[in-house]
Amino acid sequence: MRDGPAKSNQIENVDVRLFNVPLAEVLSDAKHGDHTHFELITATLRLSDGSEGTGYTYTGGKGGRAIAAMIEHDLASFLNGRDATAVEALHDAMHWHLHYVGRGGIASFSISAVDIALWDLRCKRAGKPLWRMAGGASDRCRAYAGGIDLNFPLPKLLESVRKYLDRGFNGVKIKVGQPTLAEDVARVRAVRELIGPEIAFMVDANYSMNVDEAIAAAEAFKAYDILWFEEPTIPDDYNGFGRIVEATGVPLAMGENLHTIHEFEHAFADARLSFIQPDASNCGGITGWLRVAELSRRHGIPVCSHGMQELHVSLVSAQPNAGWLEVHAFPIDECTTRPLAIKDRMAVAPDLPGIGITFDWAKLAAVGRAMRE
Amino acid sequence: MRDGPAKSNQIENVDVRLFNVPLAEVLSDAKHGDHTHFELITATLRLSDGSEGTGYTYTGGKGGRAIAAMIEHDLASFLNGRDATAVEALHDAMHWHLHYVGRGGIASFSISAVDIALWDLRCKRAGKPLWRMAGGASDRCRAYAGGIDLNFPLPKLLESVRKYLDRGFNGVKIKVGQPTLAEDVARVRAVRELIGPEIAFMVDANYSMNVDEAIAAAEAFKAYDILWFEEPTIPDDYNGFGRIVEATGVPLAMGENLHTIHEFEHAFADARLSFIQPDASNCGGITGWLRVAELSRRHGIPVCSHGMQELHVSLVSAQPNAGWLEVHAFPIDECTTRPLAIKDRMAVAPDLPGIGITFDWAKLAAVGRAMRE
Ligand SMILES: [Mg+2]
Ligand SMILES: [Mg+2]
Repeated sequence: MRDGPAKSNQIENVDVRLFNVPLAEVLSDAKHGDHTHFELITATLRLSDGSEGTGYTYTGGKGGRAIAAMIEHDLASFLNGRDATAVEALHDAMHWHLHYVGRGGIASFSISAVDIALWDLRCKRAGKPLWRMAGGASDRCRAYAGGIDLNFPLPKLLESVRKYLDRGFNGVKIKVGQPTLAEDVARVRAVRELIGPEIAFMVDANYSMNVDEAIAAAEAFKAYDILWFEEPTIPDDYNGFGRIVEATGVPLAMGENLHTIHEFEHAFADARLSFIQPDASNCGGITGWLRVAELSRRHGIPVCSHGMQELHVSLVSAQPNAGWLEVHAFPIDECTTRPLAIKDRMAVAPDLPGIGITFDWAKLAAVGRAMRE
Repeated sequence: MRDGPAKSNQIENVDVRLFNVPLAEVLSDAKHGDHTHFELITATLRLSDGSEGTGYTYTGGKGGRAIAAMIEHDLASFLNGRDATAVEALHDAMHWHLHYVGRGGIASFSISAVDIALWDLRCKRAGKPLWRMAGGASDRCRAYAGGIDLNFPLPKLLESVRKYLDRGFNGVKIKVGQPTLAEDVARVRAVRELIGPEIAFMVDANYSMNVDEAIAAAEAFKAYDILWFEEPTIPDDYNGFGRIVEATGVPLAMGENLHTIHEFEHAFADARLSFIQPDASNCGGITGWLRVAELSRRHGIPVCSHGMQELHVSLVSAQPNAGWLEVHAFPIDECTTRPLAIKDRMAVAPDLPGIGITFDWAKLAAVGRAMRE
């Protein structure tokens, strides 16, 4: 029935696992409230020649079961027997297969996990690391520590920022969206005073403001040399982003909540962004991320990332228009055999064939609660 | 911890069921291929006073497990103990609860099922039928038969259209998107010749065309007095819809693939639609549907529907700017104790307290394969 691929390339099995990984402390932002754990969903594809590739996605604590169910019940049977080397064609086929219940949301997370597994297989087969296969511009990139710290009292916030600097970061991001703008400004001022003028400094409102509030906040933050103001308002309001830029000139960033190439196209067209932050865990995997990177070059803006630093370090480094890698407060990299490496203030991509990520299953079994039998 | 609602209003239990309902024959469209069955996911909420309300959603055969998993694992515990009478507040709370994995897709389907159950409870408590609670303009509306018939040879297509007329419909819709435009035009011409000039006639391409192809098709269909051309191109390309209207003047419709209020706002702003077709099963339930209806009035265009005629008959009838009810080829209404009623060419809303839909669980158990234990 299907075009017969060379037998060794055929997908024979898809194994899905779901872990509930606790965080070391409660982390909060303006829209998602308290985070106590994150969900990690892995998808391991086995081909007819016995080779294996593992991809994954993650959530802030909700939706993991739905993602696992979709991969198991809607994607696994669809993938079985297909040619694993046709990565981009499979990506698009999964998209159309799930279209009616898709176009973003759980379908994008599910497709992402499978697509990353396909890239792991592709890079292993080529005997090359991901940074070479995904563009090859460099094996390292700038990186900043992205705090989820809205609930931290000021002394604790400053202590956490100090720790980022101790770990070798020359960029830090904090959450904003306190009950009053004055409180946000006081925290932004205190952090800038602590880090001095040389460290890159970003703020992230997690779309807790309306456009007028965001304009007022952007104006107030200007005195503290903000590299970007992230998700000031809801990601769907592309024109609202544009109005904030028009009114203030403050550089804006978003991407973690854009899940289809069309959402990115709308953002590039109307939101007047200075940085784009796709997350391969929810925008269609590495295939989806690279398509956004291609768009970012056409629009002349640097490509950054959101979350899963252990993977994005390879993707961001590989681009000629690399921006900044977010080192996210969900430490997925610590559940792998190679946590993110920082050298001379740059994040360094793994140099092994494949995506360079090997999960420490024993550690995951110990720290995480596997939610599937 | 939570504001204590009057104890009788508290949600105490959420029961989810998933059925795989076979279709009488294989139905095809241009983008989803062959349909052999549909998935029906029901959510029954029980309150502390023992009262029950049932909502539901459906899919074309994929995603049902993910929807059931999300309701069970991410929504049920969130809902338990909350005040069921605060329907709109719960709708919005569910949206923000699932936001990171949401904004459309599986989350919208899941929220829809719960929201419809909350409306069932609200209407039962008020002792009124849905059409009165959702606007009250009328208890009946125009209705058309929406075929999924791209795979039907012409004689069979004409036979099915003849059956629609026999059933009392004065509006019919067929699929377009054949390999060549000439084939589509031949089918459109043959149907118009069969039904005569008085019957309303729509065509639906399920976004199988690019903008240029859609412009050519719209021009070719003009001779056959098409009431609307549905989803000529991908729903995400709002401006593309606008260009088709600008080039041809042919009235366009969409809505079944818009899942958030923001997607509808973009469509109203840029797509130059003549009809909007929200589906309460995937745009946030009755709360979401009524918000789209409100927007449609502000933009001066009639509100229609997609799918689940047994529910939408009440919603469309209730609006002062009612358009046409789609009587969809997935006969969910035949799985209830009151299949859709047509009188004098109008669809008539149920007049019982509640949403007016009682599932025939025995019939569902017989025809459908219940996929959860
Ligand atoms: Mg962020
Ligand atoms: Mg349609």
